[in-house]
Amino acid sequence: MKYWNSTLNNMTEYIPGEQPANVEEYMKLNSNENPFPPSKLVIEAIKNAADEKLRFYPDPLSGQLREAFAKANNLKVENIFAGNGSDEIFTLIFRGFIEHNGVAAFPYPSYSLYYTMAEAHGIQYERINLVKPFDVDFDNFLMKKYNLVIVANPNNPTGVGCNIEEIRKFLKKFKGLLVVDEAYVDFYGESAIDLTSEFDNVIVTRSFSKSYSLAGLRVGLAVAHKDIIQGLFRLKDSYNINRISEAGAIAAIKDSRSFMYNIGMLVNNKEYLESQLKLLGFDLIPSKANFVFVTHPAMRAKQIYEELKKKKILIRYFEGPIQSDYIRITVGTMMQIKTVIAEISAIVKA
Amino acid sequence: MKYWNSTLNNMTEYIPGEQPANVEEYMKLNSNENPFPPSKLVIEAIKNAADEKLRFYPDPLSGQLREAFAKANNLKVENIFAGNGSDEIFTLIFRGFIEHNGVAAFPYPSYSLYYTMAEAHGIQYERINLVKPFDVDFDNFLMKKYNLVIVANPNNPTGVGCNIEEIRKFLKKFKGLLVVDEAYVDFYGESAIDLTSEFDNVIVTRSFSKSYSLAGLRVGLAVAHKDIIQGLFRLKDSYNINRISEAGAIAAIKDSRSFMYNIGMLVNNKEYLESQLKLLGFDLIPSKANFVFVTHPAMRAKQIYEELKKKKILIRYFEGPIQSDYIRITVGTMMQIKTVIAEISAIVKA
Repeated sequence: MKYWNSTLNNMTEYIPGEQPANVEEYMKLNSNENPFPPSKLVIEAIKNAADEKLRFYPDPLSGQLREAFAKANNLKVENIFAGNGSDEIFTLIFRGFIEHNGVAAFPYPSYSLYYTMAEAHGIQYERINLVKPFDVDFDNFLMKKYNLVIVANPNNPTGVGCNIEEIRKFLKKFKGLLVVDEAYVDFYGESAIDLTSEFDNVIVTRSFSKSYSLAGLRVGLAVAHKDIIQGLFRLKDSYNINRISEAGAIAAIKDSRSFMYNIGMLVNNKEYLESQLKLLGFDLIPSKANFVFVTHPAMRAKQIYEELKKKKILIRYFEGPIQSDYIRITVGTMMQIKTVIAEISAIVKA
Repeated sequence: MKYWNSTLNNMTEYIPGEQPANVEEYMKLNSNENPFPPSKLVIEAIKNAADEKLRFYPDPLSGQLREAFAKANNLKVENIFAGNGSDEIFTLIFRGFIEHNGVAAFPYPSYSLYYTMAEAHGIQYERINLVKPFDVDFDNFLMKKYNLVIVANPNNPTGVGCNIEEIRKFLKKFKGLLVVDEAYVDFYGESAIDLTSEFDNVIVTRSFSKSYSLAGLRVGLAVAHKDIIQGLFRLKDSYNINRISEAGAIAAIKDSRSFMYNIGMLVNNKEYLESQLKLLGFDLIPSKANFVFVTHPAMRAKQIYEELKKKKILIRYFEGPIQSDYIRITVGTMMQIKTVIAEISAIVKA
């Protein structure tokens, strides 16, 4: 296309989960959004931040948000960076932490935005297949000299978690930069954050979109060695987090009670969803996230996706080797789970 | 620095205007923020958007915001893109609309973020001096084959506006991509938006930070040929505008009455500020923006800046050739203007 550079002309478009404008009409189990509303204290904090101070730019360092996260996690502010969703953090990493002739590596299947972003920045990358579906074999990331590796833990769309000891072993040998994307870690419990004080080549990213029910607010965080954090600040656009989002995220961190309650319910619902899918004959790998990734021996995944869409239930189906045999279903409320199970049951038994 | 790529290691840091956490203690006339609060309807729209739907991702296409702007400006939605501030739009342009071995050109003095962003993307650029302070001579941008030119209209920090006919003449000859940054256009009135239907190589950007008093919300727009808009969508992070900011920006566009009233007051205040500075012996070029860029024959600009800072009044002083002779003062409320004039008067007459 005219005026597009070669990078843009060569890249594939990222397809997010469908996000209908009339979102209320759908049962949306396709983007791993949290089925429970955000904390009341968050809503209140946002309303309070909607004041005349909006005429001022936000703090370019997001100081109060970083302080709140530091305090809650026993970290130093200098080791924390805040982004307009963790997506912005990945973008900055591609911009400033890998040379243009470097090579990145990501597991496959994984969050396809990594592939798209590497392409958007003209960075060459390789997809390393997961083994005996769906574990990360870190030795495969040492076969060549990769400059940047991003691993989601737990992984999306598979829901499988890595062992932190394996990540530590990998970091002892790896010479490039490792990003551990912990968007779903609150449902898992095993974080790599401690590794950021042991190694200067690991960045752990967090998101407020899933466990905090704040996908609509766009806030993500990175934890890493202070030299990396300083580089992220240098690279970012002048003011990346708006005043409202910062206020909401701070309130979310502080309201740990409602957060824990919400997580507890979700884990419980996930187990129920898994048990019901098992009864319907699905094969499943126990998920550590707020979604399940399942396949049925007698039914094409794409067909299940399409039949459910007709009923205004959105789940996620991905084209591509291996993953096109699976559907990914976000864990919903108990009522949503019962509805989707009833519909899937009708499809499978038809 | 270890793990930084060569681009990051070589870039200069962007220094935004000081943004103190205790913003209420200062008279802040350094970042061209609007001294009047945002419209009440905007505040109300934001409070209304702070609801349980925050658990959902925002519309990745920001459809309703683009529709509102299209309707208000008699444009097509397909010609509009929305960004997390116009800064994000510039970032995307550097990422996807100039080859890595291309050359960009920007006026000097101008918004220094252009230089920083070019560096952050490893793009070579040239600064083209403004002529007979401070006009853009477009012929100077045709002397070499530049691939990307960004011109702020009116320009920041000088406040001088370009003539749209001159931009049209330039576009007839120019083979690269021109970005017209209209962050301050609402105080000027002469927009290049109509040129986007005549030429496929011009992008006009807008901001909600200045005329709409919404610097804290981070919303910017781009208007261009649909092929360029499509490229911007392909390049951007998955969800760049959060739900709250989209709702606030839509309400701002719709409340044209309070917007026009606000602009009227500001233009009036600017003229008063200019007249008072003239009485104090400052040289000034009539400003088309919400700030003035002035120099005093008998007083060092840096000294005025420093003396005012001691009084908790922040104005902007820039290091660098030509511009270090000037101070930039944002137009405030009438009371702020009277205070700053009294303080400057004391400094100049001391």
